[in-house]
Amino acid sequence: MTAPTIEADAVVIGAGPVGLFQVFQLGLLEVKAHVIDALPYAGGQCIELYPDKPIYDIPAVPATTGRALTQSLLQQIAPFGAQMHFGQQVQAMARQEDGRWLLTSTAGSHFLTRAVFIAAGVGAFVPRTLQVPGIGLFHGTQLHYHPQDFARYAGKDVVILGDNDAALEMALALRPDQPKAQAYQALSVTVLHRRDVFNAEPATLQAFRACVASGQIALNIGQITGFDTGAGNLLTALLISNAEGHTAAQPLDYLAAFSGLSPKLGPVADWGLVLERKQITVNTEDFGTELPGVFAVGDINTYPGKKKLIVCGFHEATLAAYGAMRFIAPEKKVMLQYTTTSPRLHALLGVHTPTHTEKNAG
Amino acid sequence: MTAPTIEADAVVIGAGPVGLFQVFQLGLLEVKAHVIDALPYAGGQCIELYPDKPIYDIPAVPATTGRALTQSLLQQIAPFGAQMHFGQQVQAMARQEDGRWLLTSTAGSHFLTRAVFIAAGVGAFVPRTLQVPGIGLFHGTQLHYHPQDFARYAGKDVVILGDNDAALEMALALRPDQPKAQAYQALSVTVLHRRDVFNAEPATLQAFRACVASGQIALNIGQITGFDTGAGNLLTALLISNAEGHTAAQPLDYLAAFSGLSPKLGPVADWGLVLERKQITVNTEDFGTELPGVFAVGDINTYPGKKKLIVCGFHEATLAAYGAMRFIAPEKKVMLQYTTTSPRLHALLGVHTPTHTEKNAG
Repeated sequence: MTAPTIEADAVVIGAGPVGLFQVFQLGLLEVKAHVIDALPYAGGQCIELYPDKPIYDIPAVPATTGRALTQSLLQQIAPFGAQMHFGQQVQAMARQEDGRWLLTSTAGSHFLTRAVFIAAGVGAFVPRTLQVPGIGLFHGTQLHYHPQDFARYAGKDVVILGDNDAALEMALALRPDQPKAQAYQALSVTVLHRRDVFNAEPATLQAFRACVASGQIALNIGQITGFDTGAGNLLTALLISNAEGHTAAQPLDYLAAFSGLSPKLGPVADWGLVLERKQITVNTEDFGTELPGVFAVGDINTYPGKKKLIVCGFHEATLAAYGAMRFIAPEKKVMLQYTTTSPRLHALLGVHTPTHTEKNAG
Repeated sequence: MTAPTIEADAVVIGAGPVGLFQVFQLGLLEVKAHVIDALPYAGGQCIELYPDKPIYDIPAVPATTGRALTQSLLQQIAPFGAQMHFGQQVQAMARQEDGRWLLTSTAGSHFLTRAVFIAAGVGAFVPRTLQVPGIGLFHGTQLHYHPQDFARYAGKDVVILGDNDAALEMALALRPDQPKAQAYQALSVTVLHRRDVFNAEPATLQAFRACVASGQIALNIGQITGFDTGAGNLLTALLISNAEGHTAAQPLDYLAAFSGLSPKLGPVADWGLVLERKQITVNTEDFGTELPGVFAVGDINTYPGKKKLIVCGFHEATLAAYGAMRFIAPEKKVMLQYTTTSPRLHALLGVHTPTHTEKNAG
């Protein structure tokens, strides 16, 4: 079954801070946006690379974090009801006879839109794949990257590769002798990491260490150098080499890998855009690309003077919104209005128009 | 006595939001700035035009006010110790043989600087002068615009023109029969406004109305159409025309006018910059002007696509800071660093470099 094509005025590719602010500026111009992101949530680099680290250079925000910045932006765009399409990438982009763009996502969604805003940052964040020759064969069957659904691991021998919160939290969730029986208790849980140092929240780490000490979670320090297969070409064991160079087999039913996400420019490279060192060249009048109706904002674009800073992306998204109006509503006369004084913008934002003047001093 | 010339790397003209963020971006590049503003405080248009009105389009700040925005920016630039020079305008700007700029202010200050950032918005906010022919003769003697020092009004007949908080607060401060004797109790206080409607905080207004009711403050509703002079060409009375067209004399010793501030581009127009409809034309690579070492950011500049929005000024100030480095420290290699990750920027900002990785899991 094919999903119906979504007709749109604006599609924003990337739900990082600049993509979110793109939604805001379009909203002020009464344009509703659809947002597509490879991650299952908003925030982009901010959420993937520094959710809890401080950011000091957002203007008028002396200190924030990637997570807090994302939340503020989501709050700011809430009045505009943008539709979010997470967990998918735009795979193809083709210009139609009427000038609109047809976008196809990896989830099989189709968008027919008047304007496209590429706010794809350093690319889509996709799981960094294991560099073990041949192991890709098991991807999707016995090897899962960043699994969210744990049901399949119940009663199985599970190896979890990784050093971060997500890896340790999965290990804790699957451990065999939990206080309360869970639907997805594993037969055994082994955490695999190349060294005995983890990069996780203190509370998570402490719980993990306790389970290792009590034997509920096994810890295997080493690197995967190969694997064994049994009957039916199933993955039966990983070959793990330790720091001393000894190799031992680690039996398993499933391997869950939390090896980090790495940004990939991906299909953007094939859309016919002019690229310069993997950045899309744009003009500085409205951050339009060579393709009519296609704009690029934030870290993915380049122009003379470009700095890869969020503050610059906010400006770019602002001018791109105005620039796109000639594709979205060519007949409309677009005027700059101020959120402080415009009752029309107040209505769009769902806020009360303030009054400070004494109405009747009788 | 002439003040010594202040040698500087950077002078920012205008302490509005964009001028303040200019200080921040320079600070991240280890450049200390001097800031000059006509107003006696920071904030520019934000403080003069909408101190308490909401602003909704500062990125990641769903709602703020002119005052709150200014305070956030002042907090953000605090680590950089910019020197503020308030209550003065830059009158003249002359290039020196060594390439630096010599700026002279209306307060007689001299600045010798490598880079100038004009963040003058819609111009310097100067009091809107009374449109009564000949009354300008008394400016500085019996007519004061926005007076701050009230001592001279003690024991005198004072007329206060205006409808805002500052006007009413002055009337309350000078009223003859205050609970506690003040050094500047007037003989009489009359508030003059063209209609009986005031634009002030409810508490101030209530106190004012009570004083009018009890006769401590006189209220004169009408407009100044002329004045009388007595011996020695002193201003002795204002001629006030009321709504019915009757004219009556209002005797006085002093007139304090709170008739609002109005922005004036002022001397900027005479500095040899290329202007287009009173805006300074700049390039979009670093927002430099035609004059070497002189940058223009915020509402005062223009370029293809320009929108007079604070978010755009923030971007402009960012690129201008980088662009100015070739004048400020030509030998220095300037690298873009991130406030999230750079220990050097953390040291400049006076913040702790965070660590998230488990150091020793022994």
